[in-house]
Amino acid sequence: MKSSNYRPINHSVGTAGKEFAADIGGMYPYEQFTIVVLTYDRDNILTLMLEGLLNLAYLHSVVVIWNNPKPPSDNILWPRLHVPIHVVKSEKNSLNNRFLPYDIIKTEAILMLDDDVTLRHDEIILGFRVWRENRDRIVGFPARGHFWSEANQSWYYNSAHSCEYSMILTGASFIHRYYLHAYTNEMSAQIREIVEQKLNCEDIAMNFLVSHITRKSPLKVTTHWSFICTNCTSSLYNGGGHMPIRSECINQFERIYGYNPLIYTQYRADSVLFKTRLPLGMEKCFRYV
Amino acid sequence: MKSSNYRPINHSVGTAGKEFAADIGGMYPYEQFTIVVLTYDRDNILTLMLEGLLNLAYLHSVVVIWNNPKPPSDNILWPRLHVPIHVVKSEKNSLNNRFLPYDIIKTEAILMLDDDVTLRHDEIILGFRVWRENRDRIVGFPARGHFWSEANQSWYYNSAHSCEYSMILTGASFIHRYYLHAYTNEMSAQIREIVEQKLNCEDIAMNFLVSHITRKSPLKVTTHWSFICTNCTSSLYNGGGHMPIRSECINQFERIYGYNPLIYTQYRADSVLFKTRLPLGMEKCFRYV
Repeated sequence: MKSSNYRPINHSVGTAGKEFAADIGGMYPYEQFTIVVLTYDRDNILTLMLEGLLNLAYLHSVVVIWNNPKPPSDNILWPRLHVPIHVVKSEKNSLNNRFLPYDIIKTEAILMLDDDVTLRHDEIILGFRVWRENRDRIVGFPARGHFWSEANQSWYYNSAHSCEYSMILTGASFIHRYYLHAYTNEMSAQIREIVEQKLNCEDIAMNFLVSHITRKSPLKVTTHWSFICTNCTSSLYNGGGHMPIRSECINQFERIYGYNPLIYTQYRADSVLFKTRLPLGMEKCFRYV
Repeated sequence: MKSSNYRPINHSVGTAGKEFAADIGGMYPYEQFTIVVLTYDRDNILTLMLEGLLNLAYLHSVVVIWNNPKPPSDNILWPRLHVPIHVVKSEKNSLNNRFLPYDIIKTEAILMLDDDVTLRHDEIILGFRVWRENRDRIVGFPARGHFWSEANQSWYYNSAHSCEYSMILTGASFIHRYYLHAYTNEMSAQIREIVEQKLNCEDIAMNFLVSHITRKSPLKVTTHWSFICTNCTSSLYNGGGHMPIRSECINQFERIYGYNPLIYTQYRADSVLFKTRLPLGMEKCFRYV
């Protein structure tokens, strides 16, 4: 971290365009984030995604959690990035591995990514800036909701377009490193067992935990395009029964907590000049968002 | 307030479109807001603006602060709204009158408006929803910044398009009723004197006060169009010397507080589905925002 990376907190530049892009500014000093990627056996998708991280600003390092008892093949062409890529082999395929507080993670800010998620750099930087102002919340991209079924007298999980949301998928979100510790060591072991049995719901569990601790909702950040992985051949999320399983998790977790800690919110975070018509010669805050 | 206006907080409807529009929902129970309008002598602009409030949802009442020693003319055609309009005559023309904690204000939520501000109903309702999740902050529309001049070694006020902001003009923003009390009774009397002398800077003073109390930034909400009053013949904001006076206020207030309490933020609040392409048949959260 060069000293030139520091910037006076009460700064005189940074109103828009280049000055804003050149420095992270705001009320917090310079910092970086770690990307943690969970992957199983999709080498091509993983390496394609990693290549996309080349020269991503504020990136400290990448930690790939190899969630497969079979170790990575020698044929994988690991891309050469501007930061180190660490591969951590897990002993068993458990989604709880995503949230293990590995020593190799050196930053407070973590960007959790599924291996099939491709975000633009400006989307990531906007998300990082928003997280810096909301360090205790899950700040990320795909929003989901929990709703009450009168007919079944139980909660159900909803991924449809909605004006309210109470969860952000941890497959594409910033969280504070502290929550890895809380998930692994402080959260009820029953919840980790359910995640392991179902091979699902680790993100719902993290949303429960963070809202339980903070009594705050998560915060969604704009993405330029809708969130669809077009390259993916297989995905955890396409299997039949995915949605009913996730609804079941919500109801099980609620019984464990004794109440439903999830909190709705009715807005999202956009960059200040998003979709604003600017006078000629002025620049936006980000290219597309 | 009819009992049918209440809604279970953990609700089963409200994902998007009509259901969302029909009820305010979220994690807070039903409530209303009061509009407080400061006016001096622009009867036509005032009545036009008041007419625009007809059938505005969640509106409890309107309080017009008649900031002119000359009382309102008998010829004013007060519009007939769905809620009462109360006119409060002030004894002298002071911008501190905007923040007097009048007994007639019965709600926690106050929408402060200049008489020349025309907001769409959906913009107002979005702002109200965002305020309900940020009850301790100034939540509103036109954002401004304070920046440091190396040359002059002092702060200057900036109203240009910026990717960061630290103030929201109270001519179009939601604030909690408590801050009227804090401004009038708890804030340094020196600041109210400066506001009175300069006939300016009451909004800067309120932003200082709220950020001093909360250590939080204000929060900007999307507007559909840029914020320009096309009907206005005269305005406080067009006079020469407006900007230097406001810069001077920032430096004076800083000396009174002993530090600069203003806090920058780098994002704004948009509705969850703003500028999102929806599947056929689905509705947005609001018509334009």
